[in-house]
Amino acid sequence: MKEFELISRLTRSLPTNKSVVVGAGDDCAVLDFGAPDRLVLFKTDAVVEGIHFAPDANPEQIGHKALARCLSDFAAMAGTPTAVLVTMALPEDADVQKIEKIYAGMSALARRFEVAIVGGETTTNPGRLLISVAAVGHAPRGKAVLRSGAEPGDALFVTGELGGSLMGKHLEFEPRLVEARWLAQHFSIHAMLDLSDGLAGDLRHILSASRVGAELMAPSIPISRAVREAARRRVSQSGEPQFVQAESHKTPLLAALSDGEDYELLFAVAARDSVPLLDAWKAEFPKLALTCIGRIIAGEGVHVRDKQGVRPLAAHGYEHFS
Amino acid sequence: MKEFELISRLTRSLPTNKSVVVGAGDDCAVLDFGAPDRLVLFKTDAVVEGIHFAPDANPEQIGHKALARCLSDFAAMAGTPTAVLVTMALPEDADVQKIEKIYAGMSALARRFEVAIVGGETTTNPGRLLISVAAVGHAPRGKAVLRSGAEPGDALFVTGELGGSLMGKHLEFEPRLVEARWLAQHFSIHAMLDLSDGLAGDLRHILSASRVGAELMAPSIPISRAVREAARRRVSQSGEPQFVQAESHKTPLLAALSDGEDYELLFAVAARDSVPLLDAWKAEFPKLALTCIGRIIAGEGVHVRDKQGVRPLAAHGYEHFS
Repeated sequence: MKEFELISRLTRSLPTNKSVVVGAGDDCAVLDFGAPDRLVLFKTDAVVEGIHFAPDANPEQIGHKALARCLSDFAAMAGTPTAVLVTMALPEDADVQKIEKIYAGMSALARRFEVAIVGGETTTNPGRLLISVAAVGHAPRGKAVLRSGAEPGDALFVTGELGGSLMGKHLEFEPRLVEARWLAQHFSIHAMLDLSDGLAGDLRHILSASRVGAELMAPSIPISRAVREAARRRVSQSGEPQFVQAESHKTPLLAALSDGEDYELLFAVAARDSVPLLDAWKAEFPKLALTCIGRIIAGEGVHVRDKQGVRPLAAHGYEHFS
Repeated sequence: MKEFELISRLTRSLPTNKSVVVGAGDDCAVLDFGAPDRLVLFKTDAVVEGIHFAPDANPEQIGHKALARCLSDFAAMAGTPTAVLVTMALPEDADVQKIEKIYAGMSALARRFEVAIVGGETTTNPGRLLISVAAVGHAPRGKAVLRSGAEPGDALFVTGELGGSLMGKHLEFEPRLVEARWLAQHFSIHAMLDLSDGLAGDLRHILSASRVGAELMAPSIPISRAVREAARRRVSQSGEPQFVQAESHKTPLLAALSDGEDYELLFAVAARDSVPLLDAWKAEFPKLALTCIGRIIAGEGVHVRDKQGVRPLAAHGYEHFS
């Protein structure tokens, strides 16, 4: 059973109460704790050795990633993380210096975004290190950006460049907290999330929550330098680039669609806001790309337009694009 | 390095911000999110297969325990848990039915205390099941009971009976949420926590946070039925009960002091409140024992009074009581 199926089965009829504004299924849970001007956001995220980071990864970067993933979910709602609790499940032979370095990596990131670390639990997990970060924060009442507000005709935007994160970015990415709050303050963002599983998969979360479809413009999808350089190396090393790519690598487009761990923002805004948004963005964040990659359509599913026309992107597998 | 040493080293200089009222070191973190009448409480707790529950434990009880431990920390502050997020790190061969039963155990407890489960993350943890529960809740502003307010002369009370929890109670205990809130509403509770590591160890957390000592009255410490019956069985099975106990078992008193996982409340109140508190408690909670087990004294450390006099209880090891 896939993770999403299992979660949807488990979360079908969970206990709730009147504090719950948004429960399972968005980037953060949203709770009403009675503050007049704000709602509480609540999120956890875990990283596991051998799955989310290699056993020999730089410990500061492991700590950075463990916290950054959780903060990225607050960015996805244009929220502000306030405080985190860190659970470290340690193998028996855990090296105290390594653990302190992991904390140093988390602390440096936390300080940069004025997030407090308000406690640390350690427990034993024979065999491998697991770090779970729980975070609470807030968003102005009525201003948390959900996944469910995309409308046909909306333009779809993505920050940064996609694909190839496992070549390095996944351990050092910056959660787009500042950018997301700026977006929500200056424009009506209809739906937003942070890309963790890859554009092709994550876009479907917005589509199903909003009951719409999407058409992506293949040539517009921003492909990361890491992916482009890897593709160039393959071309220069071989007279048969297509063969090499089909044999052992994704095409650059497929990498951008499916590699995952981009931690960039994907959002939908009314088409009429596209040009003013791009202009204002360039003035505010000149170093970070913002790209219109397609639009929301009535119907369902992801469709990709390229010079051969429009084709549906299958939910599982990317036959046409590999 | 022991868990407490490691945590104290890691939490020595954590990032903080102006929302933090109480950070690492109490039962829950306490945060000010701007609600006029209440503060936010925040806590995580993890249970690991083979450490906190046996691989063949009843799955509903595993779920119950995973959530109840976290809720018990809210009881320790006389707070109210509102919403939880559940992280399940699953071995590769995880049985979906077992996971659903674990969720059923959590959900039943959550419903009883009107706690919402607002999300579930699953990830992979080859080799063993790990469940981490993160919870947010609240306490009336200025009314969360900390560990740091005990004063010389205060009476020390404990709910229920202690020891032998691993014989069954640890999988089915009730967090003392109702009792704790009642206590804080009707009396000035100077310091409180929930007993997870055993009376002898946990009492020291109140003492060091409050910079005081304590004298326990050995004959008053309420020893659980499970411990008393186990001791009786050993006496009836052997003509040399002392020998048998010294050889393979703790004495009942030592079990009550050190077994851990009691999840009862330990608290300090002004001595003058002792009698009215006991009277009111009996009327309100006739089925749950409340026992005065000693008093707070100036100085430091735990001292135990029995018919031989007063002896210090060593921080590590209980030579005199085993």
